[in-house]
This record gives sequence, structure tokens and C-alpha cells, in this order.
Amino acid sequence: MITLLGHTGYVGQAYVHFLKSQKIPYVGLSRETCNYSDPGTLANYLKKEKPDFLINAAGYTGKPNVDACEDHRTDCLAGNAILPGNIQTACQEAGIPWGHVSSGCIFTGSRGDGSGFTETDVPNFTFRQNNCSFYSGSKALGEEVLGYEAHTETGQQVWKNRQPEDFYLWRLRIPFSGVDSPRNYLSKLLNYRTLLEAENSLSHLEHFVRATFQCWEKKIPFGIYNVTNPGKIITSEVTALMKQKGVTQKEFVFFENEEVFLVKAAKTPRSNCVLSADKILAAGIELPPVREAIAEALDQWKPRN
Amino acid sequence: MITLLGHTGYVGQAYVHFLKSQKIPYVGLSRETCNYSDPGTLANYLKKEKPDFLINAAGYTGKPNVDACEDHRTDCLAGNAILPGNIQTACQEAGIPWGHVSSGCIFTGSRGDGSGFTETDVPNFTFRQNNCSFYSGSKALGEEVLGYEAHTETGQQVWKNRQPEDFYLWRLRIPFSGVDSPRNYLSKLLNYRTLLEAENSLSHLEHFVRATFQCWEKKIPFGIYNVTNPGKIITSEVTALMKQKGVTQKEFVFFENEEVFLVKAAKTPRSNCVLSADKILAAGIELPPVREAIAEALDQWKPRN
Repeated sequence: MITLLGHTGYVGQAYVHFLKSQKIPYVGLSRETCNYSDPGTLANYLKKEKPDFLINAAGYTGKPNVDACEDHRTDCLAGNAILPGNIQTACQEAGIPWGHVSSGCIFTGSRGDGSGFTETDVPNFTFRQNNCSFYSGSKALGEEVLGYEAHTETGQQVWKNRQPEDFYLWRLRIPFSGVDSPRNYLSKLLNYRTLLEAENSLSHLEHFVRATFQCWEKKIPFGIYNVTNPGKIITSEVTALMKQKGVTQKEFVFFENEEVFLVKAAKTPRSNCVLSADKILAAGIELPPVREAIAEALDQWKPRN
Repeated sequence: MITLLGHTGYVGQAYVHFLKSQKIPYVGLSRETCNYSDPGTLANYLKKEKPDFLINAAGYTGKPNVDACEDHRTDCLAGNAILPGNIQTACQEAGIPWGHVSSGCIFTGSRGDGSGFTETDVPNFTFRQNNCSFYSGSKALGEEVLGYEAHTETGQQVWKNRQPEDFYLWRLRIPFSGVDSPRNYLSKLLNYRTLLEAENSLSHLEHFVRATFQCWEKKIPFGIYNVTNPGKIITSEVTALMKQKGVTQKEFVFFENEEVFLVKAAKTPRSNCVLSADKILAAGIELPPVREAIAEALDQWKPRN
């Protein structure tokens, strides 16, 4: 039995779909049934129900986009920084292993050589760098609440937990899939009037869900995993693929540069970054390369009406 | 009728003492009676009870000192950053004016000329500067949650609320009084084996309580107020006063410098700072100068058995 938190959200619904398709019994916990943001209440529930594993897909992302987090700071911090800490307390008390959906949006850019950030790199798009959105800040603080912090090891800064890890922390990065949705990256590209050209790692949402669940099934070591489709891609390459696959005939228009984007379209800076998926791949979990993943989504594309 | 949150804490108890001495009716709300960290629950309570004013003296400070916040990040963020946001939501919904006890520990040092930081100065000991304790970070984030942020005005960074202010934010700074207590600065100086020489503004707790309550009684404009006894003082001057007043014969020992202190005695950096009390003084509220306030506390000194 799996306990799923946040089952009505965009990521949670993908877990529901996956668990159903695999005939894996689960309970999507609603706050009405069990006020799971209270660690005592959740611990009692877990001690009684004894699930094999808990997945936290609950969080606060802001609608229609992360700009909304700037105006809802309490909910944003409560959902992204406090909730994971309370779940950790409850799971430790009840002795239940668990996994947390974090975000790759706590990084910006790439390593000096253009390669992706690894799980030991210190997040560089956080309150501590004072360069981020409230959303990214709250997600990075969520990792700190779970015990991660910058340690100095042989002269280098390393992102490391103060405690032995007894949970998974999975970093999702710009989710997309073949199903049109206001939260789907491909839908956003179709619907936004003007786009920002940027290089990113991306997560096919169904691949993400499958891969994260396999972490638990295959009992790979606990800890942080970047769960992105290997590689990186720029926005205009994604839109070219969309046209090539016949998903749209739209003439995509791009902002001149990020500064113009920030002035004209956004309230708060966006994370654009490259992540390395080497750690999860090395643990024996498969994730198709990013171009293949996008092609798969576009081949299956189902527009809403 | 006054609603008091955090009435069992060190600061809350000083409000209890003051309100009783003034025969002002109040209710010290406990979480058992009303789960006031839930904005809906608190709003319903406030709509029913219709207090004239609410004081939030609840917060998470860590025991025996702020080092404990490093290990209790969830509770620290929940008490110092999320709770004020939820109280704000509830008070706005119920139309109740209120005041929040914040902290001066979100600053370090003094202005370039040695004078104290004012209420429009941007806090410089926060997550965003990446130089602070988790406690100070959470307190500064609490101010952000309440709507404050750095704005650029005529080329200068200014700490300002995004919304018209409809509450008081009072900054307390190293509380002390004539009553010996593990939370009293003077008691800490008596009990710590070795002291850190540093220059600070301080708040006589009873003066703080009286002055903050007068903000409401005198209907001075809402907003941030540094509520410290005017002036600044170094640690060795405080200990000299303690000996001069006959409170102790102890030979105080000091760390060579702050670095030694951090290595030997502390897990996390401490805020030492000078604040300007000019704004609250200009509003017509009296606060005795810091040396006078310390002398008053020492003249009344009551040791615990």
C-alpha cells in the first residue's frame, strides 16, 4: 500500500494514473480525511495504516505560474518548506520510508563546462544567492529543512545532509507529457504569446513518475536524485520539433533576451538550468534522452477539445 | 479586550504582567483552545470575540539559545515565518488591528557612520545575505511574508511593504530586565563562562512591552518600529555596570575575538547590531536611554533563588 500526498495536483495525478495502470494499491490522502500538514496527525495515520511507502507530491507552485508565489508567500513557504519537514518528522516517527518531489528550479545555468549540475552541487538559485523567485527560494529552503546544507569538503562546497538519508528527494524539472494541460511545458509553449529562448533539462512527467517509483521498487540508496531526461535542449529546438511533428503550425515568437522577458512578461526571475541525470542512470533506472522523450510526447499529443 | 498569542513565552509573560498591572482585559490564547496557526480558525475566533487588538508574541527562538534553531528548522520557519503570515490573513479577514513582535537580529553591524539601522534599511543578516543563523533567516523571511521587500528608490535600496500597512511590526533586540531568567541578557552574561565583546542596541523587556502597547493606545501610524532603548553599548560596559551595582563580583572573561567565539562556543553566527529608535521616539513614545535602562534593571535585580 502506497500513501500519496497531493494526489489532486498535476504531479499527483500522474502518480494516480501510474499506480492504477500498475494495479498498485494506494490511498490518495486528502487534508479533509487526515490533516497531514500536522506531523502528529500524519504519524498516527501512518502507524495505523502502515503503508509500505509514502510519496509527497504536494507542494505550492502558483497559478497560472510561479509569479503567483510572490503574492502568496505564506502558502508557498508552508507548502514547499514546512510541509516536507513535517512529513519527515511523521515518517521517521512511524518508521515509513518516503520520497519527496523537489524541484530542479533551485539551480540556474550550468556548470562552467556546460555540463549539468549534480546532486552534490550547492543550489545556486535560492534565497541565499538572493537571485531567485519566492518559489525557488521556498523549494531550496525545503531541502534545507530536510537537513541538506552546504558543507566544505577538501576546499569545495558540497550539498550534503547532516543526517544519514532515510528518504528519496527527487528533483523534477519543467514537466511535460503528451497530454495538453495548463501545467504542461509543451502546452505553455503553445499558449504563450512570446517565448524565452533558454537552455534547459526537462522531465517527461510519466517518465519521472515511473523512475521515482522504481527508486523504491529497486531499493536503490536513499538520497537526492535529479530525475530529468538526460541531456539539455533550447526552447526553439522544442518548438521546431512541435512543428515537425505537426502538433502546431504556429509561428513562435521569442523575446530578444531574458531582460526584455523579465520586464515585459514576468514578475520574478525564472530558473533555466541544466541538470545531470547521471546518478539515477548509474543506479540502473532508465530515462530516455530528452529529444526522444519530447518526440514521444508529441507523437501521443492529445489536445484538450 | 486584547488577544495575546504566545502568552506563556518570555515576551508573552511580560505582556501578561503589563496588561494585568494596567487592569487591561486580555485573553492569552492557547493552541488547545484555538489552533491559531490555522488562519480560518483564528479568523472565526476573532470574528466571534471581536477583540480591539491582537498581539503576536509567539515565535520560535530555540532553547537554550538560537543554535537550537539549526536543528529544528521546520518549527523555526513555522513559528517565525509562516505564523505571522497566517495571523495577518486572519486579522485582515476579521478586520482586527494587530502587532507582531519581530526581531532586530536581522541586522549585523551598524551604518557606515556607526549610527543605527533605521526601519527603511534593508536587513543585512538574512538568508539573502547568506551570512546568518537559521533563526535570523526565519525572522527576516517573516517580514517578507508580511509583505516587506527591498525596493529601489532613487538609486537606493529601501525596505518597504508592497501593501499599505495595517499592523505594527515591532523589532525587539536582546531583551533584558531586572528579573533573572534564562532568556534575560543580563542572566546570560552572568551564566556564560566566556563572553563575546560586541556593540549592540538592547531592549529592556518591560519598556518594550509598554512602548509597543502605547503604539496602539496612542494610535501612531502602523508600520515597522525598532523598539530598543536609544543608544548602543558594548558587552564589557554592561558587565562593568553589573559589578558597579553589586549584582555580581564575577571576573568576566572574554573571547579574544568573534572568530574564536564561533569556533569554541557557537554553531551559528550571532547578530550584533546597532538600531536607531528615532522613529518610535519621534512618534511621541518614550524609551529611556540604554545605560539608564540597564541601571534600572540592575537596581531592581531579583536573582532566582
